[in-house]
Amino acid sequence: MAWVYLSRVVNGPCAALSALIESVGVLEAARAVRECDLPASLRGPTEQRRGMDSAARDLDTIERMGGRVVTPEDPEWPAWRLLGLSQLDADRDRDGAVPLVLWVRGPLSLLESSDRALAVVGARCSSGYGNQVTGEIAGDLAAQGWTIVSGAAFGIDGMAHRAALAVGGRTIAVLACGVDRPYPAQHDRLLAEIAETGLVVSEYPPGTTAQKHQFLARNRLVAALADGVLVVEAGLRSGARNTVKWARRLNRPALAVPGPVTSAASVGCHRMIRDGEALLVTRAEEVIDEAGPLHLPMPGVAGPVDRCEEALSGDEALIFAAMPEIGSRLPRELANYAGLPLPVVRAALPALELAGLVTADADGWRRTTTYGK
Amino acid sequence: MAWVYLSRVVNGPCAALSALIESVGVLEAARAVRECDLPASLRGPTEQRRGMDSAARDLDTIERMGGRVVTPEDPEWPAWRLLGLSQLDADRDRDGAVPLVLWVRGPLSLLESSDRALAVVGARCSSGYGNQVTGEIAGDLAAQGWTIVSGAAFGIDGMAHRAALAVGGRTIAVLACGVDRPYPAQHDRLLAEIAETGLVVSEYPPGTTAQKHQFLARNRLVAALADGVLVVEAGLRSGARNTVKWARRLNRPALAVPGPVTSAASVGCHRMIRDGEALLVTRAEEVIDEAGPLHLPMPGVAGPVDRCEEALSGDEALIFAAMPEIGSRLPRELANYAGLPLPVVRAALPALELAGLVTADADGWRRTTTYGK
Repeated sequence: MAWVYLSRVVNGPCAALSALIESVGVLEAARAVRECDLPASLRGPTEQRRGMDSAARDLDTIERMGGRVVTPEDPEWPAWRLLGLSQLDADRDRDGAVPLVLWVRGPLSLLESSDRALAVVGARCSSGYGNQVTGEIAGDLAAQGWTIVSGAAFGIDGMAHRAALAVGGRTIAVLACGVDRPYPAQHDRLLAEIAETGLVVSEYPPGTTAQKHQFLARNRLVAALADGVLVVEAGLRSGARNTVKWARRLNRPALAVPGPVTSAASVGCHRMIRDGEALLVTRAEEVIDEAGPLHLPMPGVAGPVDRCEEALSGDEALIFAAMPEIGSRLPRELANYAGLPLPVVRAALPALELAGLVTADADGWRRTTTYGK
Repeated sequence: MAWVYLSRVVNGPCAALSALIESVGVLEAARAVRECDLPASLRGPTEQRRGMDSAARDLDTIERMGGRVVTPEDPEWPAWRLLGLSQLDADRDRDGAVPLVLWVRGPLSLLESSDRALAVVGARCSSGYGNQVTGEIAGDLAAQGWTIVSGAAFGIDGMAHRAALAVGGRTIAVLACGVDRPYPAQHDRLLAEIAETGLVVSEYPPGTTAQKHQFLARNRLVAALADGVLVVEAGLRSGARNTVKWARRLNRPALAVPGPVTSAASVGCHRMIRDGEALLVTRAEEVIDEAGPLHLPMPGVAGPVDRCEEALSGDEALIFAAMPEIGSRLPRELANYAGLPLPVVRAALPALELAGLVTADADGWRRTTTYGK
């Protein structure tokens, strides 16, 4: 209940409040907000609504809809996926905070359905080509057990959800409004269907209408709940580029599908590929290469201090040898230096990271100075 | 005459013979070949045809066609452009030798017409989309004074030549056979038209028919005579990928146009972009960004020892500061580190190189250890 109260007070992500909850606990934080016993940084965001206590009513609303609230204290909370958000540099990514709570409807578990998930986003004004490719790739992946995450918008989003539903696969719709209302309105049947077999998610309480700034916050959740982001079509100023930006901040693959250079709907995808913001993919197999789980068998599990770099085998040894002595290197460069295919490198890096030998930063991967750091 | 004799003896590039000519001069080399007074490495390539001396007849043939032979001793010899070929590692690129002579027909000068030149190559089985895009990009560039270089093959090549001719621009066709015969035969009118206003070039003497291995050698010339290579469409095993490989070996931009992922004619382009072998471009302006000449004004010309890195201005200073202390960095990475647009970085690097501060290698650009090295 305290969670729900606080969530409505700030109405969206608030890094400062998340930090307060982490230090003093949610009950104490709720008390502090209610009594305005707060540091200066929190008075602004909480001022307007700290008197509102509709927590009981909100919980009742969501339950009557057959939904539920998921808080960080719940086992269903997808902590690992959202970990990336909390690790973002608070100064640089003020909007990158972890959500306070998640409101959900649907039979999927937020935790389980995040095993292999791909965000599929793109232009609202999609073309027939974009719809076809979306249907093929999303359908292929869903049929192979991938969860398709999207925003239920017109165009590519809607197509992605429908493709997953059509093959009996799993799909998650992340909304910028409360889960009690469809947005866009014309997707009410689609969202009802998603809520029957998949999941409809929002960090905004029931009754919240879709405001412009909430879409950008929603995009970060779409990226955070998936292993990578695929943009099928995007115009010059498409919101999909924002979702891609979040994927990159979260160190997840950003993929884009090209199209005819004569098509306005592909301009954004071409721009992202050209500028190195997204990697070109043409079909499901290539998505799996980039965003899929490890293919290499894990060597015997050992704690970081036990793992010695001389014990690395074959490919891992080549990749580790390709790491720069100082500074970071991108996986693609490592692949070039090591003479290995890029998918092999990408699959091996997390294993090296678990062994405490390498770590990722904004510029790529670097050697750890001492094990585990 | 000695050049022509030797050219027919080896019938294609021969690095060992080029080296011999460089050390003892062409007349002495011709004598040595005629009398088989050769090191072992040269006896094989020259064995078969060293008795043939059709030099006089060949020269007569080319002149009656209104053409000419251009040798390394001629002022028209495009030494600067072919410099890249001679700098290739002889062990790695055995086929990378500089041509011995070039046989040409047409009013363009090999030297002048290489000012701003783009190789435009691609699938023989081009689609309507590929033809349209080729026509637009090649036509745009030719209208702006660029020379379009290609191989006169069916499909993209032919379209590129025609687009240049249509706007009254300059085009060069590089053949795998002698310049006295059209290949493919159906392009005889096209080649005749190119010979009227542009240039038809071959390193093979008149009368030589088109053999398979000669096409790969021809591709290296297509790349060498241009500032960059653009592939518009390419199937999975397209010869265009070979031409792109030469561009990369010669440190020239390799560019590719994407298309529908449902089109077999775009598969090769998508593969090259995805693997980082070529950069995605969609129109003439982007080609110019990547392959065009310097846009920045050159700082006052100074010898390398006079140039002090503290004297670098604005962008150049940022770019130089973005160079790694050791090892190389690609222009794209420099652009990221420096926070500058990629075209600005690409334009500044040659200036920094002329100043002796940086130098290019296979992995990118690096700081020179002492000025000029």
